[in-house]
This record gives sequence, C-alpha cells and structure tokens, in this order.
Amino acid sequence: MRVELLCTGDELVTGLTTDTNSPYLEARLFELGVKVGRVVLVGDVREDITRGLQEAASRADVVIVSGGLGPTADDFTAECAAAAAGVPLVEDAGTLRLLRERAEKRGRELTPNVARMALVPEGSEVVPNPVGAAPLFIVRLGDCRLFFLPGVPREYRALVEGVVVPRVREELERRPGRTWRAFRLLRTVGLPESVLDARVAPLARAHPRVVFGFRTHAPENQLKLMAEAPSQAEADAALAAAEAAARAELGRSVYGADADTYPGVVARLLTQARATLAIAESCTGGLIAAQLTAVPGASGFLVGSAVVYTEQMKTAWAGVPPDMLERHGAVSRPVAVALAEGIRASCRTTYGLSVTGVAGPTGGTPEDPVGTVYCALAVDGGPTRCERFSLSGDRELIRLFAASHALELLREHLLTPPSSP
Amino acid sequence: MRVELLCTGDELVTGLTTDTNSPYLEARLFELGVKVGRVVLVGDVREDITRGLQEAASRADVVIVSGGLGPTADDFTAECAAAAAGVPLVEDAGTLRLLRERAEKRGRELTPNVARMALVPEGSEVVPNPVGAAPLFIVRLGDCRLFFLPGVPREYRALVEGVVVPRVREELERRPGRTWRAFRLLRTVGLPESVLDARVAPLARAHPRVVFGFRTHAPENQLKLMAEAPSQAEADAALAAAEAAARAELGRSVYGADADTYPGVVARLLTQARATLAIAESCTGGLIAAQLTAVPGASGFLVGSAVVYTEQMKTAWAGVPPDMLERHGAVSRPVAVALAEGIRASCRTTYGLSVTGVAGPTGGTPEDPVGTVYCALAVDGGPTRCERFSLSGDRELIRLFAASHALELLREHLLTPPSSP
Repeated sequence: MRVELLCTGDELVTGLTTDTNSPYLEARLFELGVKVGRVVLVGDVREDITRGLQEAASRADVVIVSGGLGPTADDFTAECAAAAAGVPLVEDAGTLRLLRERAEKRGRELTPNVARMALVPEGSEVVPNPVGAAPLFIVRLGDCRLFFLPGVPREYRALVEGVVVPRVREELERRPGRTWRAFRLLRTVGLPESVLDARVAPLARAHPRVVFGFRTHAPENQLKLMAEAPSQAEADAALAAAEAAARAELGRSVYGADADTYPGVVARLLTQARATLAIAESCTGGLIAAQLTAVPGASGFLVGSAVVYTEQMKTAWAGVPPDMLERHGAVSRPVAVALAEGIRASCRTTYGLSVTGVAGPTGGTPEDPVGTVYCALAVDGGPTRCERFSLSGDRELIRLFAASHALELLREHLLTPPSSP
Repeated sequence: MRVELLCTGDELVTGLTTDTNSPYLEARLFELGVKVGRVVLVGDVREDITRGLQEAASRADVVIVSGGLGPTADDFTAECAAAAAGVPLVEDAGTLRLLRERAEKRGRELTPNVARMALVPEGSEVVPNPVGAAPLFIVRLGDCRLFFLPGVPREYRALVEGVVVPRVREELERRPGRTWRAFRLLRTVGLPESVLDARVAPLARAHPRVVFGFRTHAPENQLKLMAEAPSQAEADAALAAAEAAARAELGRSVYGADADTYPGVVARLLTQARATLAIAESCTGGLIAAQLTAVPGASGFLVGSAVVYTEQMKTAWAGVPPDMLERHGAVSRPVAVALAEGIRASCRTTYGLSVTGVAGPTGGTPEDPVGTVYCALAVDGGPTRCERFSLSGDRELIRLFAASHALELLREHLLTPPSSP
C-alpha cells in the first residue's frame, strides 16, 4: 500500500515550525508495516495545495493531508480538496450541530468563520474530532482515499489514533503478502546514549530479525526494537526475545515501555505502595510537582510541594535552620538532607524529596559550579539518602535532569524490597 | 525565484528522524525574501529520488537536495542525479585528492566505498565540504540548478551558509523585480483563535502588502504578519503600519512579539516593578512556578510557591481556615481569595497569586464541573481580585489555561498604572 503525506501551512515552509506531525504518523504507520512513500510540505497557496493533492492522489492509495482546516482566512484546504475533486463544498449538518453546541457550551454565538469549519467537499465521509472543532473528512479521488486532518498536533494525533491507524490497519488486513512487524520502545533513565548503545549493540547479532535503534529525548534515552517477519506470530516472538535480552542487560534503567511516562510510572509505584509524598524544590522550581501532578490521580499521593526559592522559605516551610544555611550555603548536602526531612515532617508523609542546586546561567562558584545539584530522599524509619550530581547543559536541561535524578532516588527506593532486619 | 527542497533518507519517512535541516534553510531563505515553494521528503528508493528530482526541476529555479551522499550502500543520490540529468557519473579528481588526504591524516587507506564520494554527474560544479568528506555539487537540469548537500546537519548548515545562501543572494541581486519581505509574529493570550481572526481580519483590506496568518499554540494564539514589497524599506514600512493597527485593535492581549515567551514577559514586568511574588497552586500543581522559574533570574522576584494539593496544606502554608474549606469546598471563590492573601502573608511579598480548580478527568460536581477554575491575585494595599473560569479540554489543557489565566491577572495588574487617590 502506498501512503503519502501532504502538510500545508506557511509556517512549515518558512522555518517557523518544524513538522513533528509527520514523524509521529510515519512511526505509527511503520509499525503497521507501511513505509511512507513521500512527504510533501507546501505553504498556504491555493494552487500549490490543489496541485499537491492531485499529484499525491495519482501516485498513492492513501494520502494523509493536514493543516488549513481552522476558522481563519488562511484556512482553505477544504476548498482545495473540493477543487481537486471537482465537486462543490457543502455544509455538513452533523458538524454544524456540533460546532453550535460547542459554542453554546462556552457561552458564545456560532460565528460565520467558525461555521465555515462545517464546509466539506460534496460526497466526503465526515468523522467528528474528539478533541477539537474541525472534523476529519475523507475524499475519494480515483482509487485514492485522502484523509484531511487539522494540523494542531493534539488534534492530529487524536485523529491519527482514532481514525487513520485503524482504517489503514483494516485495509492492510485485506491485502495478501505483507511484511509483519512488531515494535517496542524501551524507555531508560540514567544511562547516556553512548553507554546504552555500547551495552545493547552486542545483542543485535543474536536477534537478526530485530532492528535496534536509539533515540534521545532528554532526560530519557530510548531503545527502539523493531522485528520484521513473514507472520505476526514470528515477529512477536522475535521481538519478545530481543526485549527480554535488552531488559536483562539494562535492568532497572528501563523504567517503562511504549506510551509509559516517567512521572506516570513513579506515580503508579507510589499509589501501589499506598505511600504519600512531599517535595521541597529549589532549582527545579516546581518542575517535579508539575510533572507528577500532570498524572491523573496525583492527589492520591501528593500532599504538598514547596518551591523554596529563598532561604526564608527554606526555613519557614521545611524547617531548615538559618545557621545551617549560613554555614553550608543553600546548595549543600546538609541543606538537601534538612529540606527532605523537614518537608516530610511538615506534610506528615511517607516520603520527603528535595532538590537544591545551581541551574544557571549564573550563580555558580568554583566549588559548586553551574550544574551542581543535590537530591535527597527522607523515608519513614530509615536514613535519608542524599546524592550530588554535576550536570551539564543549559538551564532547561539542568532542571530536567535534576528532576529526573531526584525522582530516581524515589523510584529506586520504591523498587527495592524492604531488607529483613 | 521558486525554490524547492528535496530531502532523501529512510529515516525521514519512518519517523526515526525529524527533518530539522529544512526549517533551518527555509528560515535563511525567507530572510532573503524567498518563501520555499515545496519541501519533499522521500525514502532511500532510487526511482522515488530520480522522479522527485525531475519533478522539482520542472517547477523550480533552484532545488536544494540533501542526503544520500555518504559512503554506505544506501547512499545513491549522485546516481539518481546522473540518471535524472541523463549523464554518466564521473570521478572528480579534486575530490578524490581531498578524500585521500583526509584518509591519510587519520592514518587510514582510502577505501573503495569512501572513494565513491568522488563520483558526481558529468558536468557538475563541485564545491569542497569544509567540515566533512562528501562534497557539494551543482547540476543543471533545463533552467533549474540543483544543489546536492550531505544530510548531516553540521555539514548541511556549513554548506548552506558557505554556498547556498551566497549563491541564492547573488542570483536574487541579478533579478529585476525581486520581492522583499518583512515579518512579525504577535503573540496573544486570552483570545480564542476565532475571536482573534474576527477582530484582525477586517484590517487586512487596509494593508494589501501584508499577509495576515494565524497559529494556535495553547494557551497562546499568534498573529503572523508578513509584508511583501519591491524594496526592503517599503516592506518594513508596510509591516510597521499593519503591526501598529493590529496592536491598536488587540491592545493588551498582545503580550509580546517574535521570540518573546509569556513567562519571560511576566518575569520582566515583575523585575521592572521591583515586585516580589508568592504563589499557591492547587490544580496547576507547580506548573506556574515551573514556568516562571524556567526564566533565568526568577530568584529575583519569586520568594516561594506552594503546591497545596490537600486541605491540610492549604491551611498550613496559606492559612486558609479549615471551616472555610468545609463550608465552601476547596474549589471556591473564598478559598481562592484566602489562598492568595495567605500565601502573600506567609512569604511577605508584593503579590500573592492563587489557583484552585478541577483539572479532571474526575472530581467535578454538577455546580463545579471539570474545568472550573478560580484564580486570585492579592496585592499590597488593594482589594484581592478573583475570577472564575470554565475551561474545556483535557487535564493538560485545563492546567495550561488555568496557569495562563492566573498569570494574566498579574500581568494586567502590572500593566495598569496606579490610579490616583
């Protein structure tokens, strides 16, 4: 099956926006055994879009088109689709009703420009957008089916998962002689990409049906395993063997797989342990709390978190003695320990987690340069653990890695069975 | 001048690599007044590359081709270029000499696969690569010139700067009637995209040289203004007039332009006012603090921020009376006000900001469904302002918009000159 992508928008041809939608869809299609034949990006120019649609339809079985379906004057992809198909635009009654309900829910009138989003080429199949206003529609041009999606990444991804991937899968299942693929993304923290590569690459020889790939997405490094075989069962078996070998090599550095998120995994471990958590953040400034509270149900374990950006609040909220701050400085082992223990006492939780460090770009000293970070974990009835890290990168990277190192203290503790007395 | 880009490589059509070369070149060309007409990505498939070259050459004056020039078996772009031009590949003596010197410098022999990089289509102009092995070569196809570059980003960028941009600039200077462009991105918060469009679109008629475009990047909506004129001075003047009209229409909804960030602008206003800030976050869970502390220098105004995810901590850290929580519930106007005033008192700051709401997916009630959010701002010597919002979307969107609505209370206050007594 030949699939092509056509993405529209001036921002895509003037360097304003990097197209991240296409790699997302390409990867999902590749998992189904489909390698995208061509990706075309064009600006907001009617004749370029119309011509691009016709050319892609002449080559491909399926074309995924994105962008230009919104309510504004530079949104005219539906017009171009109608022109390419040689049909008029018609108002889709179902979409119009949904747009009106949506406007009413927000206490607004349905304006004419919003109502334009109900216009689709005559004869299209229309599928409602579960997370936005503009619907997906499907147009036939000769033997080719063109799927039109909004370019907003959230909406694009929801419609890829809800409509495009299932439809392509159905179509593939009807075709003979295909290659079957199975795919796993193993997510690691705490291993540099070169170390991950050095430890895993030697495994590849024993797994000839599996392609080993690496991907960096700070603070994570990911191992992609893709198995290809003449049947799904063989692909699944080859993948399972390679995954088991990689997990045995990497141990706890693998925190999860596929759609797992690191905060989600930590949240799950806390919830399973029926434990509660309090956090005192200095250089990460709320990032750890923001990551954990992005997980639905975080209120089940997170009691409170304090961004103690001043000495005054380190003392007030986490009980750090002022003379300790004066003697050792805010970025120090004793203060990290006091923050973790103090915040745990303030919030009366199972665990107290703390971070204090120098995120930069200024504020470093010769002994504690930018990137110096202390993380500490206070636990119920055990010693407080504290580690010092020397991180490199800019402010954003230092904060990201500081947050993940702190959460690693907690994850490691939660994974360790209690030692017998 | 019509310019198109053609990028080759399986990694670009299987989701393994996001194409960042094209946005880089697009932006450089756009600065010269050239909007790229089309970007095409194809996999490592000979006939797709050859066909792509011929099609692009039939439409464009200049085509920038990248990838597939290396030493490995899947590098065959030079072959495709020769096929498209109908000429044989020939060995370029200068390149062969450079490749041999390069190998010797590293104490290696020149291997046959490395020597392949000296093969270029007959009649090409060859330009050495200052930072890598594979040279750039230029092929003529009819009236079109095709530049072939390696896809490695470092090499690509060096050759874009050293060869492509200067050649395109020369060519533009020789052409009469070139178009000059000027560009501005106005960043707004608090206006839905359709409202932004409805208010700004009527201005377009008075500014015929300016293209008005819109872009959504939650919680922002952005207005793109692009002026085109026969001289840079006229483009600049047309842009300035359109920008002034848009700013007059949108007022304070425009928080910044181009590379400004919303937290960065709020941070700048706080710093300029020599004000200090304390925050009490419930449903946003640290997001506001994390956004503000991402800005270097945040320690100059942020004293402390409390994620008060439980009633216990709302009372302990922000002094909210337990009976108020019981009577009104945590998501209520009185609690939002008490949080803002209490956190300000705890931290002894100029401002106290609070958010309390239901981010979902569960936890809503009939009176306060998921998406109900109260934001409050306590100020020195004035009444506390509190607003209620009904937000839609998933947990992530509700948290993003709740954070920006809270910060808007603060930004509006900071922009309002003190009223005379």
